[in-house]
Amino acid sequence: MPNIFEKRRNRLALALQQRNLPALLVTHAANRYYLSGFELHDPQCNESSGCLLVTAEGDAWLFTDSRYKDAASQLWPENQLVIYSAGKDAFIADWIHERGIPTLGIEDFSMSVAQYKMLEKTLRLVPTRELVAKLRVIKDAAEIEALRQSCALNHKVFSQVPSLLVPGTTEAEVAWKIECLFREQGASELSFDTIVAVGPNSALPHAIPGNTVIMENSPVLVDMGGRLNSYCSDQSRTFWVGDTPTTVFQDTLKRVQEAQHIAIEHYLPGKSIKDADTAARHCLARYGQQEYFTHSLGHGIGLETHEAPGIGPRSRTEFQPGMVITAEPGLYYPQWGGVRWEYMVLITEDGHEIL
Amino acid sequence: MPNIFEKRRNRLALALQQRNLPALLVTHAANRYYLSGFELHDPQCNESSGCLLVTAEGDAWLFTDSRYKDAASQLWPENQLVIYSAGKDAFIADWIHERGIPTLGIEDFSMSVAQYKMLEKTLRLVPTRELVAKLRVIKDAAEIEALRQSCALNHKVFSQVPSLLVPGTTEAEVAWKIECLFREQGASELSFDTIVAVGPNSALPHAIPGNTVIMENSPVLVDMGGRLNSYCSDQSRTFWVGDTPTTVFQDTLKRVQEAQHIAIEHYLPGKSIKDADTAARHCLARYGQQEYFTHSLGHGIGLETHEAPGIGPRSRTEFQPGMVITAEPGLYYPQWGGVRWEYMVLITEDGHEIL
Repeated sequence: MPNIFEKRRNRLALALQQRNLPALLVTHAANRYYLSGFELHDPQCNESSGCLLVTAEGDAWLFTDSRYKDAASQLWPENQLVIYSAGKDAFIADWIHERGIPTLGIEDFSMSVAQYKMLEKTLRLVPTRELVAKLRVIKDAAEIEALRQSCALNHKVFSQVPSLLVPGTTEAEVAWKIECLFREQGASELSFDTIVAVGPNSALPHAIPGNTVIMENSPVLVDMGGRLNSYCSDQSRTFWVGDTPTTVFQDTLKRVQEAQHIAIEHYLPGKSIKDADTAARHCLARYGQQEYFTHSLGHGIGLETHEAPGIGPRSRTEFQPGMVITAEPGLYYPQWGGVRWEYMVLITEDGHEIL
Repeated sequence: MPNIFEKRRNRLALALQQRNLPALLVTHAANRYYLSGFELHDPQCNESSGCLLVTAEGDAWLFTDSRYKDAASQLWPENQLVIYSAGKDAFIADWIHERGIPTLGIEDFSMSVAQYKMLEKTLRLVPTRELVAKLRVIKDAAEIEALRQSCALNHKVFSQVPSLLVPGTTEAEVAWKIECLFREQGASELSFDTIVAVGPNSALPHAIPGNTVIMENSPVLVDMGGRLNSYCSDQSRTFWVGDTPTTVFQDTLKRVQEAQHIAIEHYLPGKSIKDADTAARHCLARYGQQEYFTHSLGHGIGLETHEAPGIGPRSRTEFQPGMVITAEPGLYYPQWGGVRWEYMVLITEDGHEIL
């Protein structure tokens, strides 16, 4: 029985046949892992742990260096494993050329220009972008279960966060305690840098936790995620520390949650993704606040925190069963702070489920 | 007085003049940070937090998206800051074209093919690789001080490691405790995933800490690093847990340390880098063990754990004052395990200093 990775490669092979492409060189780390089970990460963005060649017939070769030979051998047949040393780009180009493959699909968003220039000396290259992304966008049953568990851990950590929000504690201290909660309860790493933003800092969608101290009666925005069994979580909440939340905070929180609720009502199979984004913006426009919602509504999540589909005014696709997408409207006011509220939502056969 | 980033950009401008290039688009995250102070990391390898255009006249524009506007504004003049939204590659291509820049240097190891294809519609592109790397390879006084402090933290954590190597503890548990020691003593993150490898696992240069338990009388290889004030550390040690180290372990440790010592004697300004690698291999060859040293001798370290120069049989350059380079020979035997020993070495005006 083919394993899950082989099944995925067979679906990719079909897509290659439909595109009339003899093969695809998979260089993007998460795509490589999705199709082979080998190494979810590269050591650095400019340092690959390997790549995967998948043909339209469904054959596949894994290329890596000697550091990874043992790890690769444990999950990959030896006669389909190719170990390169220095000069990897030239080596891979020659190997594929000698295999008689004339035309090669490449992942244009991830392949470096250097590798491209080496490959194009002997091969006709066809940039592709969405071949693997289109497979990954629909999660299979095991992935949905993994995302459900990963999001459950996120909920668990969020239930522990209020006890960390003690006046006198810095943003950075809270962020580190959150990281410990994720790691000590099973996460292999954070899925992205935790945001803990106090007071006016919470008006920055990309706030970096610093030495700002939590004060009695201030808003604290927390955006956090961990990786559990390879799958990411991502949720945001905004807390009020103290007993006397301001009216403007309460109003803002209500509006953000209402916009989120209305948006999620549009998370339905077959419906336009853009409409969900529009619905959130229209809701905030009724309060005259749409200009303070300065980012997109959400993004797909899975092996990566940010993956297809994006949800924003430029979305052109439809919700499909098996997609897992965040819904995270926010309102940001430099004078006092901001509010963001985020769920992960699974699109089901007949509706959706908030994870 | 120009700040450190401006000084570096001025040196880059000179290099551009020498190459007869009107401008360079800096897309590699660590290079962007080195030249601007803006964002050392990208959120994901396929998601940029911005790029920097530096001209041969020394002018510079920072391109980023709205998430980073505030962070950028705090360190960059507003009239040199360009905020893009969706369609960034086309936007940047148009912007540079309209500026009348005909020919653009690009970082071919880091730029994606997708961005390249968009830029080449209107610009003549010249792939470059080493323009910024050649600046970064020589650390300035502030960088040397930062690396010294980062390595000092590494030494401190290593002094705490033996107390963690308790029989019954798993590799993964030790790795997490090491991470906590780095973070709680000032590191902003690990500079790479910690390796804790027990027994035969230590024969894998790229071992991933797992559920293997430390046993009385087994070797444990630890390779670890943290990031302190933006700069990385990287050191390895191999411990024997228990009172009765085997003769083969003791002999192997002695040989590795001897090879390291002999190699470091070649870490001298003006001397060939390759000779240091050769010296280590010759030393091990005298014991008939050279085939068990399966990786390169070392690598530069700074803003990234792995940066120029690499030190191996293919090295073509010379040691220069201001380089900081690891020296990390190892011997690996699948039957029982391996030994690696690693220092960070600063090349000085008249010799070297082990950090």
